[in-house]
Amino acid sequence: MIIVSVLYPNGPQARFDIDYYTRRHIPMVQQRLGAALRRVVVEQGVAGGAPGAPPPFLGAAHLYFDSLEAFQGAFASHAAAIMADVPNYTNTQPVIQIGEVRV
Amino acid sequence: MIIVSVLYPNGPQARFDIDYYTRRHIPMVQQRLGAALRRVVVEQGVAGGAPGAPPPFLGAAHLYFDSLEAFQGAFASHAAAIMADVPNYTNTQPVIQIGEVRV
Repeated sequence: MIIVSVLYPNGPQARFDIDYYTRRHIPMVQQRLGAALRRVVVEQGVAGGAPGAPPPFLGAAHLYFDSLEAFQGAFASHAAAIMADVPNYTNTQPVIQIGEVRV
Repeated sequence: MIIVSVLYPNGPQARFDIDYYTRRHIPMVQQRLGAALRRVVVEQGVAGGAPGAPPPFLGAAHLYFDSLEAFQGAFASHAAAIMADVPNYTNTQPVIQIGEVRV
């Protein structure tokens, strides 16, 4: 199983609309990726590690797929539509992390 | 529910021993945090978002707790022991993200 994490960096001018993201963007992603998307967790950043530190990311989604191939196969034909929605909820450039689940 | 993500940045000199991390460090963390730690997912970074891009993080753990207070209460008395083990598997400075689960 793999996790595709999409992390929206915090910053002075950073904007991230968590309501649009959870109510509109993520449901659209789920609908388009279908059964290949095994699970999705969305988080709103609340803090960093040090006391009082801001969260490094304003928000993030962690999307689980059976394999890298399953992700790529599902994403390829919907990438344009998914990416076109991004400016509706953020002005940040997301960091994309793809990892293999080990535990 | 909250997620505490511990992200180990990739870099030219970065070292991250995924075997030690999954076999020794994470079990120790689970044992020390006990039932407050509701779930843990460990990933080994395999790729970034762009074709051929390296993963931004060599590895990461995503730890789930019922609340920020549950995390802080469980972590406080074990922080020193947990942090002391870090040099055994990495020379990187982890990024800590605390987020509230929204989906």
